[in-house]
Amino acid sequence: MQRYRFDITYDGTDYSGWQVQPNGMAVQERIENALHEITGESVRLHGSGRTDQGVHARRQVAHADLEGRIVLRGLKRSLNAVLPGDIRVLGVSRVSDSFHARRTALGKEYRYLIWNAEIVPPFLRRYRTHVRDRLDAAAMSEAAASLVGRRDFAAFTANPNRVVESTVRDLRELSVTKRGSEITVSAVADGFLYKMVRSLAGFLIRVGEGAEPVSEARVILESRTRTARVPTAPPEGLFLWNVRY
Amino acid sequence: MQRYRFDITYDGTDYSGWQVQPNGMAVQERIENALHEITGESVRLHGSGRTDQGVHARRQVAHADLEGRIVLRGLKRSLNAVLPGDIRVLGVSRVSDSFHARRTALGKEYRYLIWNAEIVPPFLRRYRTHVRDRLDAAAMSEAAASLVGRRDFAAFTANPNRVVESTVRDLRELSVTKRGSEITVSAVADGFLYKMVRSLAGFLIRVGEGAEPVSEARVILESRTRTARVPTAPPEGLFLWNVRY
Repeated sequence: MQRYRFDITYDGTDYSGWQVQPNGMAVQERIENALHEITGESVRLHGSGRTDQGVHARRQVAHADLEGRIVLRGLKRSLNAVLPGDIRVLGVSRVSDSFHARRTALGKEYRYLIWNAEIVPPFLRRYRTHVRDRLDAAAMSEAAASLVGRRDFAAFTANPNRVVESTVRDLRELSVTKRGSEITVSAVADGFLYKMVRSLAGFLIRVGEGAEPVSEARVILESRTRTARVPTAPPEGLFLWNVRY
Repeated sequence: MQRYRFDITYDGTDYSGWQVQPNGMAVQERIENALHEITGESVRLHGSGRTDQGVHARRQVAHADLEGRIVLRGLKRSLNAVLPGDIRVLGVSRVSDSFHARRTALGKEYRYLIWNAEIVPPFLRRYRTHVRDRLDAAAMSEAAASLVGRRDFAAFTANPNRVVESTVRDLRELSVTKRGSEITVSAVADGFLYKMVRSLAGFLIRVGEGAEPVSEARVILESRTRTARVPTAPPEGLFLWNVRY
């Protein structure tokens, strides 16, 4: 057995998410099927984490163990020949058995991209969240900065009715930048809770709209309680941007 | 009756082209249907020219005559509310009866976008023509420059088995620029023949591949005969970029 690392990018629009689900086609499933078609092996692909329905990945990392002898360059080309154009394999490499796409990840970066103008260009409509009314990016930036640090983010995760070991995460960066009509929320952490980035983005959009003052960011954080003041922003603007090892 | 000018952008991927066809949905038809839904009038929309199946428009211009009183801002918003996200109305304005989207156009710009790398990012796959092998952009640029001018472009149009008044066009600009993995062919003329930009792009790609020497551009032009040495490049990389009046 040899462990392989796969660096993958995908347009999540037409998938039920990264992980295999009862309904709809998952990105993971598509790649597992392609690996089976190419190698004849029944392969289980382990991702660095899930992405939800409609969420994209500029770079997702996964690993799998394969029995047979593989030519790396050939495997990458074969995968890209078999896979549809909305999933691309950026790289395949041999890694030691100690590598684990989820457990050995040191940190992750997500970006949430907002198109803040009257009209979204048709070419971006699948990859940006549309906010028509002008957002106050400076206020969003200030609120974002006040959330950085090792903190309990229970107020910024969806409640999936399940036990979570800890809701503390080290949010190393949460920044808001504006360039033309595009507002980018960039989030770097050791790990993220379920729907955490979309919850942070949803709250920051409310700050940008003037519906919440900047100072409420810390109040809501410290309440450790999820309320309607923290909406989950839509999936189309969210990209898993990078995973660091 | 009042004449209106419509500035429109669209992702052509899922359309049979601009103009109403026996099969498939045309962009023109979608907008005519939306105008009918909003105004109750049976409207004929006249575009600056056709775009083929799968070709995009960063800016297409069209005109139509409407009977009723119209609030411009309201019409634009209503159209964008009724139309799908792959067609957006950028602007609506009142124009005089002498304005004609096709006949009074002074010039047009098309851009042909090539992604010259092993892998096309999933987010660009609908909007770039993929060429895997490295193209010689300097050679393409030189060949392009040699085609500029008022010339007979019969060798660079598809043969639609129909009488064309003249195959002479004033090609004011034909440039090739490379930035990272992206190669842009930009073409400006008083007007373009049927499939002319895709024919020019198809030939320039062959020059970039080394299949044709730069000097053959003028030889083929002067032959005034379309041959297999001028392939029609695929539609996904082509954008009607602007129409000037």
